[in-house]
Amino acid sequence: MKARVHVMLKDGVLDPQGEAVRHALGGLGFGGVSGVRQGKVIELDLADDATEDTVKEMCEKLLANTVIETYQIEFV
Amino acid sequence: MKARVHVMLKDGVLDPQGEAVRHALGGLGFGGVSGVRQGKVIELDLADDATEDTVKEMCEKLLANTVIETYQIEFV
Repeated sequence: MKARVHVMLKDGVLDPQGEAVRHALGGLGFGGVSGVRQGKVIELDLADDATEDTVKEMCEKLLANTVIETYQIEFV
Repeated sequence: MKARVHVMLKDGVLDPQGEAVRHALGGLGFGGVSGVRQGKVIELDLADDATEDTVKEMCEKLLANTVIETYQIEFV
């Protein structure tokens, strides 16, 4: 079973990586990019008996810093 | 208009970050995790006239290292 976790910075938290990408895109001539937010996507190959609660616990303990990040779990 | 780009390592390319996460999950007592792949998700706020080709060009030039990474574009 495969789960996909999206981890993004919370709104309002400064995203220096996103700003750097936005700046670089401008330098490459890509106008009209008003904002860039960068996050992580983590694909987990799990045992068939894994549950959403298990993945949630993985996020809370390791995969996301819940002070500044939010996460979304998707089973694929 | 918002576009979301998923950048993942190609199959067969070693993913040290993913391995580190898998190892750490094991250390936290999460058994049954046979594989972990970590990638980037980049959310772009674009002008309304932006096209998929524009975003594709951004990926080819900056957002993805197409030698070892693949990317998927999604308009949200």
